Amino acid sequence: MLGVLGGMGPLATVDFLTKLIENTPASCDQDHIETIVSSASHTPDRSSAIIGTGEDPYPHMKKALVGLERCGADIIAIPCNTAHYWHAALQKETKLPILHIVDAVVDQFESSRCNNGVVGILATTGTIQAGVYQTRLLNRGYGYVAPALHSQSDVMHAIRLVKAGQLALASKILSVQARLLMDAGCTVIAMACTEIPLALADISSDLAPFLVDPTKALARACIQAAGLEPVKLSVI
Amino acid sequence: MLGVLGGMGPLATVDFLTKLIENTPASCDQDHIETIVSSASHTPDRSSAIIGTGEDPYPHMKKALVGLERCGADIIAIPCNTAHYWHAALQKETKLPILHIVDAVVDQFESSRCNNGVVGILATTGTIQAGVYQTRLLNRGYGYVAPALHSQSDVMHAIRLVKAGQLALASKILSVQARLLMDAGCTVIAMACTEIPLALADISSDLAPFLVDPTKALARACIQAAGLEPVKLSVI
Repeated sequence: MLGVLGGMGPLATVDFLTKLIENTPASCDQDHIETIVSSASHTPDRSSAIIGTGEDPYPHMKKALVGLERCGADIIAIPCNTAHYWHAALQKETKLPILHIVDAVVDQFESSRCNNGVVGILATTGTIQAGVYQTRLLNRGYGYVAPALHSQSDVMHAIRLVKAGQLALASKILSVQARLLMDAGCTVIAMACTEIPLALADISSDLAPFLVDPTKALARACIQAAGLEPVKLSVI
Repeated sequence: MLGVLGGMGPLATVDFLTKLIENTPASCDQDHIETIVSSASHTPDRSSAIIGTGEDPYPHMKKALVGLERCGADIIAIPCNTAHYWHAALQKETKLPILHIVDAVVDQFESSRCNNGVVGILATTGTIQAGVYQTRLLNRGYGYVAPALHSQSDVMHAIRLVKAGQLALASKILSVQARLLMDAGCTVIAMACTEIPLALADISSDLAPFLVDPTKALARACIQAAGLEPVKLSVI
């Protein structure tokens, strides 16, 4: 049984669950993976905690993890990039394997694209400051580019717009930032905050083939961990 | 904390969670209701069990309920109309209140429409045969019309098409059936299988004002049970 440490935010969790269903080879309800989801939406803001301006979310995450364990989860996924700052600490709390979203992204690259590319990171300021992507990408032989400081505050603004339901404006801002990263030499862009694919999902621009959705990569990693072969992809 | 006994089917649970989020008055993650979801997708088909051709789903539902209780749920919702056949039995297993989807629908009528109408029931054959809606509607002063036998098999076929992702054809069949129920004197149509609103959601026809979405009604009942005022509705 898959345990989902979710609610960060609630809409991103629903997006993850949708991608889990869409990528599962299934023709009826019973073909789908049994899942227990803890939507711990009261968890304090992860980004604020990392940059030192907010309450510590860790006790909330730990409590949700214990609940999932008690419900019989065999493996854990966290559909929130920023929350992966606490991945190692959470992993120490449990014997259950906690999949890492960056590993899921890199595994996806390796199974379907050229290796050793340069990854542009669109993410919360917390994710960037915590180095969630950078360390793991470098360890696995990838370069990266993160937005410049003033660009990063635009990205963060767009993420907050998604959380408030203003997708159109968010999409506009994020497209500009993605293009800047491509101009800076990136070969692919990781939409490394679960809110970003919600705003960039419908993009039919020339950017689309270069956008990688970590939420989808994590969903597919969960399907593989359950011993199933995810449905074939046209693009990542 | 809201406990969701879900996975029947998985997509309907995601639809319920989306409606829970959309109907919650929230401006940030932390405003949303803490939720634990058991997506017990391996639960055998409810309709087949009721009509006597399939395995008993009750042990699966009971196990999921116990899991939710153990995780600290305070109240339970089941986003599957047919599963309400086992509502009374499940309620006997736990001290936690289990909201009833038909009560949620009737409460919605009473807060926003004229009382004592006639409700057309679009549902699985299991839901119809079990009388999930009929008994409760009559007890609360409502009449009802269920489709004739041959129409009911069309409805069931459409529901299976939704589960298989063929929304366009399903929408066509269900629109025809909804119109037949209106012609038979119904004042409102309950889309009483969680798959049906997925197929009829985008309908921009003259039927739209008469379609009631029990999934949404249940989501709003959960929000009220959490002590919050659901966001205002233009139509039910």
